[in-house]
Amino acid sequence: MDKLYGEADRARGVPATVAWLAEELGELAQAVRKGDSDDQLHELGDVFAWLASLANQLGLSLEDAANRYVIDPP
Amino acid sequence: MDKLYGEADRARGVPATVAWLAEELGELAQAVRKGDSDDQLHELGDVFAWLASLANQLGLSLEDAANRYVIDPP
Repeated sequence: MDKLYGEADRARGVPATVAWLAEELGELAQAVRKGDSDDQLHELGDVFAWLASLANQLGLSLEDAANRYVIDPP
Repeated sequence: MDKLYGEADRARGVPATVAWLAEELGELAQAVRKGDSDDQLHELGDVFAWLASLANQLGLSLEDAANRYVIDPP
């Protein structure tokens, strides 16, 4: 992911990435409400990609972040 | 993830999960703006977990959704 998108992501910057992520979450919410499975899969992928981009730009690992739920469930 | 949380997730239902996901995205945005790395990692994990929960409840695979970005970049 970083290899494919890292450079463009860093040029965009963190605040713009947060804004994009929020926008994609809105599209996902709409797909859940009235889209079909293909739409939902598409929007899930978009939200995931922006989340991964944000993690990269923050110097954090989404995998580490997710592992907390497996190692130390809330 | 499904084994740990699947049952509670399904009881919660899809609309409530979308609402939780939106709430967690707000917490992530705040952590990005004024939190430290630990806060950001924590909130990234929360958003990821709710996204995974939503995918499970929709009968979709977050991995499939993410793979589109690798196989067929937009």
